[in-house]
Amino acid sequence: MKLYVIGIGPGGEEQMTLRAVRALEQCDCVAGYGLYLDLIDSLIQGKERIQTGMTREVDRCTAARDAALAGHTVAVISSGDAGIYGMAGLMFEVCESHPEIEIEVIPGITAASSGGAVLGAPLTNDFAVVSLSNLLTPWETIEKRLHAAAAGDFCLCLYNPASKRRTDHLQKACDILLSERAPETPCGIVRNIGREGEAFTLTTLGALRDTNVDMLTTVFIGNSQTKVINGHLVTPRGYHGV
Amino acid sequence: MKLYVIGIGPGGEEQMTLRAVRALEQCDCVAGYGLYLDLIDSLIQGKERIQTGMTREVDRCTAARDAALAGHTVAVISSGDAGIYGMAGLMFEVCESHPEIEIEVIPGITAASSGGAVLGAPLTNDFAVVSLSNLLTPWETIEKRLHAAAAGDFCLCLYNPASKRRTDHLQKACDILLSERAPETPCGIVRNIGREGEAFTLTTLGALRDTNVDMLTTVFIGNSQTKVINGHLVTPRGYHGV
Ligand SMILES: C[S@@+](CC[C@H](N)C(=O)[O-])C[C@H]1O[C@@H](n2cnc3c(N)ncnc32)[C@H](O)[C@@H]1O
Ligand SMILES: C[S@@+](CC[C@H](N)C(=O)[O-])C[C@H]1O[C@@H](n2cnc3c(N)ncnc32)[C@H](O)[C@@H]1O
Repeated sequence: MKLYVIGIGPGGEEQMTLRAVRALEQCDCVAGYGLYLDLIDSLIQGKERIQTGMTREVDRCTAARDAALAGHTVAVISSGDAGIYGMAGLMFEVCESHPEIEIEVIPGITAASSGGAVLGAPLTNDFAVVSLSNLLTPWETIEKRLHAAAAGDFCLCLYNPASKRRTDHLQKACDILLSERAPETPCGIVRNIGREGEAFTLTTLGALRDTNVDMLTTVFIGNSQTKVINGHLVTPRGYHGV
Repeated sequence: MKLYVIGIGPGGEEQMTLRAVRALEQCDCVAGYGLYLDLIDSLIQGKERIQTGMTREVDRCTAARDAALAGHTVAVISSGDAGIYGMAGLMFEVCESHPEIEIEVIPGITAASSGGAVLGAPLTNDFAVVSLSNLLTPWETIEKRLHAAAAGDFCLCLYNPASKRRTDHLQKACDILLSERAPETPCGIVRNIGREGEAFTLTTLGALRDTNVDMLTTVFIGNSQTKVINGHLVTPRGYHGV
């Protein structure tokens, strides 16, 4: 009994690995958020689909598990990497009392990598990945982590930087960073990575504070060494300069 | 004048994206560490090769730049993601005074994603990526970051956990983490991800301290919520339990 959790990367088929494409071919049933299934529509023709809204993740995983138990070979689709704020963890939790289901996680290109590549190379040194969504993590924990990342001079990659209901999370995050980092610290934001309408902006920590972003955006905050080289955001690997 | 910096993922061709394969096809000259060129040997038949040893990264990037200036379409190859301890940042630095060279970074699956998938889903919540190599970053900075990551209850993914000359870095790192985290904290190590000889071990922070690892290994340290489910390392996404 086999269930795949597949990261499809930031956009469509071109950004998937061959391994992910092959695993998808093995499956007769595909579960995922509608937008992601649309992105790989040509690869899943004729397969049964389990589709639920964005926030019904537990329902989707339960339905995928039940389809596997009923004899289907199921693929659960995540955008980006399946393990980074993706469906893999939840799938293991939902299948805890069904060890007979063999879960194989197929990694994908996460937004930190794909967005970083659009901007240049902002994450060449140590970095922290933080989600600003407090739907599943208390805001106090998020603040604690931002303080810690600031203290450690980590480059930061922020997922879920905003949503319709929360518009001030990025502002609050920047204020925490600004307590340790200069307002001139180079930053970048990337929207719709690898999809139609891909767009990026280079900015500074001071200006980022007053920038509006949405849920389709990933935010990069430089560390004390990050600089802009010919229009690209670059964090040097270390002290052996060129 | 075009130069690609391409992340090939952890292993061979199967783990590359279609986009990376297509970019490679455009190139007539390929620069990279020998091991990585071997992994994609079938894709680079007949192309000129710029090959230097592991630590000659600046030389390799300079040679790649000069080949681009001489009219070649060049691919610089990194394992994993080209931006994460990869060649992309250095390439921008080396080409700083040659803005006529258009550098395109093609992201790849980094070891945090590919190793995480082997173990289960250890990075489903906020995490920090730290390299334990002090060749390019002072050890004091690395210690500061480990302390910060411990204080923030970040999951940790450690790259370059050891080398021939440095055998106690992982032990020192674990001691820092143990000042904030229980010795029972679940951890995992993965060696040769996506390559022949891939192997993983689940362990605890207390035992990890006395484990020998090498340079072909990536280490995962759980946060306060990480658990083992049916032999897999899983960090739950958040407090909405199943
Ligand atoms: C629930 S998380 C999923 C992350 C995904 N599993 C990954 O590894 O990229 C959603 C957040 O990821 C980021 N993200 C994912 N795909 C993106 C894309 N194509 N463009 C910009 N940001 C993206 C955004 O910050 C978004 O709010
Ligand atoms: C110089 S870094 C390069 C990282 C690479 N750019 C990436 O994104 O995965 C080398 C370190 O990455 C990790 N690593 C890279 N590829 C690996 C693999 N196939 N298996 C295990 N660890 C790997 C190890 O920790 C290794 O010491």
